[in-house]
Amino acid sequence: MPYFDAASSVPLHPVARQALQASLDEGWADPARLHREGRRARLLLDAAREAAAEAVGCRPDELVFTPSGTHALHAGISGALAGRRRVGRHLVVSAVEHSAVLHHAASLRAGGGTVTEVGVGRDGAVGAEAFAAALREDTALACLQSANHEVGTLQPVAGAVAACREAGVPLLVDAAQSLAWAAVPDGWSLLTASAHKWGGPPGVGLLAVRKGVRFAPQGPAGERESGRSPGFENIPAVVAAAASLRAVRAEAAAEDARLRELVDRIRARVPELVPDVEVVGDPVRRLPHLVTFSCLYADGETLLHELDREGFSVSSGSSCTSSTLTPSHVLRAMGVLSEGNVRVSLPAGTRAADVERFLEVLPGAVARVRERLGAPVREAEDRAAGAGAGSSLTVDAVGRLCPVPVIELAKVIGDVPVGGTVTVLADDEAARLDIPAWCAMRGQEYVGEPEPGTYVVRRLV
Amino acid sequence: MPYFDAASSVPLHPVARQALQASLDEGWADPARLHREGRRARLLLDAAREAAAEAVGCRPDELVFTPSGTHALHAGISGALAGRRRVGRHLVVSAVEHSAVLHHAASLRAGGGTVTEVGVGRDGAVGAEAFAAALREDTALACLQSANHEVGTLQPVAGAVAACREAGVPLLVDAAQSLAWAAVPDGWSLLTASAHKWGGPPGVGLLAVRKGVRFAPQGPAGERESGRSPGFENIPAVVAAAASLRAVRAEAAAEDARLRELVDRIRARVPELVPDVEVVGDPVRRLPHLVTFSCLYADGETLLHELDREGFSVSSGSSCTSSTLTPSHVLRAMGVLSEGNVRVSLPAGTRAADVERFLEVLPGAVARVRERLGAPVREAEDRAAGAGAGSSLTVDAVGRLCPVPVIELAKVIGDVPVGGTVTVLADDEAARLDIPAWCAMRGQEYVGEPEPGTYVVRRLV
Repeated sequence: MPYFDAASSVPLHPVARQALQASLDEGWADPARLHREGRRARLLLDAAREAAAEAVGCRPDELVFTPSGTHALHAGISGALAGRRRVGRHLVVSAVEHSAVLHHAASLRAGGGTVTEVGVGRDGAVGAEAFAAALREDTALACLQSANHEVGTLQPVAGAVAACREAGVPLLVDAAQSLAWAAVPDGWSLLTASAHKWGGPPGVGLLAVRKGVRFAPQGPAGERESGRSPGFENIPAVVAAAASLRAVRAEAAAEDARLRELVDRIRARVPELVPDVEVVGDPVRRLPHLVTFSCLYADGETLLHELDREGFSVSSGSSCTSSTLTPSHVLRAMGVLSEGNVRVSLPAGTRAADVERFLEVLPGAVARVRERLGAPVREAEDRAAGAGAGSSLTVDAVGRLCPVPVIELAKVIGDVPVGGTVTVLADDEAARLDIPAWCAMRGQEYVGEPEPGTYVVRRLV
Repeated sequence: MPYFDAASSVPLHPVARQALQASLDEGWADPARLHREGRRARLLLDAAREAAAEAVGCRPDELVFTPSGTHALHAGISGALAGRRRVGRHLVVSAVEHSAVLHHAASLRAGGGTVTEVGVGRDGAVGAEAFAAALREDTALACLQSANHEVGTLQPVAGAVAACREAGVPLLVDAAQSLAWAAVPDGWSLLTASAHKWGGPPGVGLLAVRKGVRFAPQGPAGERESGRSPGFENIPAVVAAAASLRAVRAEAAAEDARLRELVDRIRARVPELVPDVEVVGDPVRRLPHLVTFSCLYADGETLLHELDREGFSVSSGSSCTSSTLTPSHVLRAMGVLSEGNVRVSLPAGTRAADVERFLEVLPGAVARVRERLGAPVREAEDRAAGAGAGSSLTVDAVGRLCPVPVIELAKVIGDVPVGGTVTVLADDEAARLDIPAWCAMRGQEYVGEPEPGTYVVRRLV
């Protein structure tokens, strides 16, 4: 059963499993104790830290283990902000960072700090110049992911490093999605990652803070992990995390080439096989194993279930698949279609045959979802304005969820003459993203949203 | 090789190991995902939550998993304080809580809140009346451990429950040391615990918050665990933690009786076998498996190493065994001797023969440590004042660590006449605790500390 959601989490790597087994017997004691069990645990912890530091490209005393990537981000951001409190309380982030970074930014704002969110292009990448321009006199910290977790686009880390160095601002790089593939090139001030993304066990994050970076751990004092990560150390998991990071790195070059080809194949074939699809993210400057596309007139949740029934596990940034009912902030920042969104992220070892089978079943799955929603076929949209139709129409889709507002729009656009307008009333958040995206895909004009929830579209073709 | 440090951490319970193995295969995926791997992970997480809630005695939706007991304490305290921000910013804690609670209290103070630390008796228990008296109009939260982690004394939780209910103040019970033995009787508002204390894996804490308790999670927003514990869920560990809690509970009554007898034996025999020992903590209202004693004129670190060489792993609250060079805050709060401190905490399954062997080797180990330090033998202390000795003497032990200042005092007390004084100059923090404790054990008068680091003792016998 092919699992294509590696960017969420991957099964334990065999090396991680072995290391975990062994260190459950050797590493359960408190490494702060002086007895032999404690000393043994301390040795394991030290060895894991050395191995992880080597893979990250830092000194062992610059790296601490945290309970998750999210904890690493929160500890790193709060410690770096506090360390430069005198400089100011301004934080720079890209608009497509992991939600933990954006949540942290929101809480900084709520506490009186300021945040600049640097936007991204339709490819999902921030411009290095825009990032540099956001740095101010009072900027305490800048955060940039090495690669985006939803669309795979690589970020211009080297450019951000140069800009931050120039401005004297520390740069935190969230390497959660890329650390399995390679170390982040030197020049960062703080780095975070998460072990279950590379086949390590859950329960382990990494936070590296370069010597010389001003850093003041926040929250109540703690004795563990140099005071940077409280709570009893999870040594068996930490050992397994470090061992598996070395193991996946040893396989990284070969897997990178192999999966890159498979993803290229998906990127090329999906638009040929499925009508009205937008493949998003940078086609070249990207993670090797990840591709995301959106299907017009499809509902992400139903599409996921269709694919699940066919045996494929994928993920989606569509609003209907999230608990918040808003589309992914990444797709929103990119300004691309969010409906019928599918993220495919291939784990190491994915077989070409499984990718081929995915390409076989995808068109049928999308077609079934569209049919069930009563999605318009292309012909209907293109028909001439019907007799008696006025120059404007209003569609009431209030209370209807994505992708229904777009479907309703598509159904009636042919009923107004070229130059006429359709007004869509919709309270689903996704409409704000998907109606303009539909217009771009269809060559129609998106006039705007004169009032919240009222979208005006002019027929051009 | 007998491991007698169960209160720090115990090896994985066989049931935990089995559950961990099984759920590594089934529970590695993101439980927020809709695909089958995600659904399977979600089922495991839900089942673990139900099992843990049953053992705790709460509803599943009242319980979240955290990365450690320390995380549970910090999340619980900060959430409860914030939930009652309008009532006030006063926190009540006992003076012998886990260091995480006291660290949290210190950070509340630093941020402008107020804290009342309720003292304990020489047995290590807070008085229920003193605890009740500490509750004020502006008290947002009170914290009391179910049992002390260093001396085993049970705290009067039922009394604290009644007082808090009367005052309308929520009570957080830190059940880290007792949850393996029994559920905390009803009436608490928040409860915390830590899995590696009961044979679960490291990386799992529990935080239960009763319905109706005002609670506002602090820190950046998070989607996991009802917004009360951020970061990717550690499902294999959580499953193992819940399974092993059920398993240890099934064995608890029998083990309680067995270990209680072994501890009674240690409590009775140690003072008979080793001269100048103080066994601390309540002899009856205590955890079944834990006993602590302090040995005059011995250095805790060396004593631990001696016992380690004999094959026994124990822990110590002496200052020389901690990274901070201050004696355990628990022993300090109790006002008992801290030098040569040994905590014995027996894991389930400890054999009586191992306890007997411990009692055999202990006297020799203590004697060797004392000899190496040049500790006075009893006779020397009792000798009459030497010729030419004045009515007062000063001993300079500045720069010397515990137990040297006490040893130097003991060496010269016989050199002053009854009614004369010895002044000890010492900058080791432990002296503040151990010089008065020595006086109490020896029937001498502790006059006081007229200036910091200057201790005056009057010879009475």
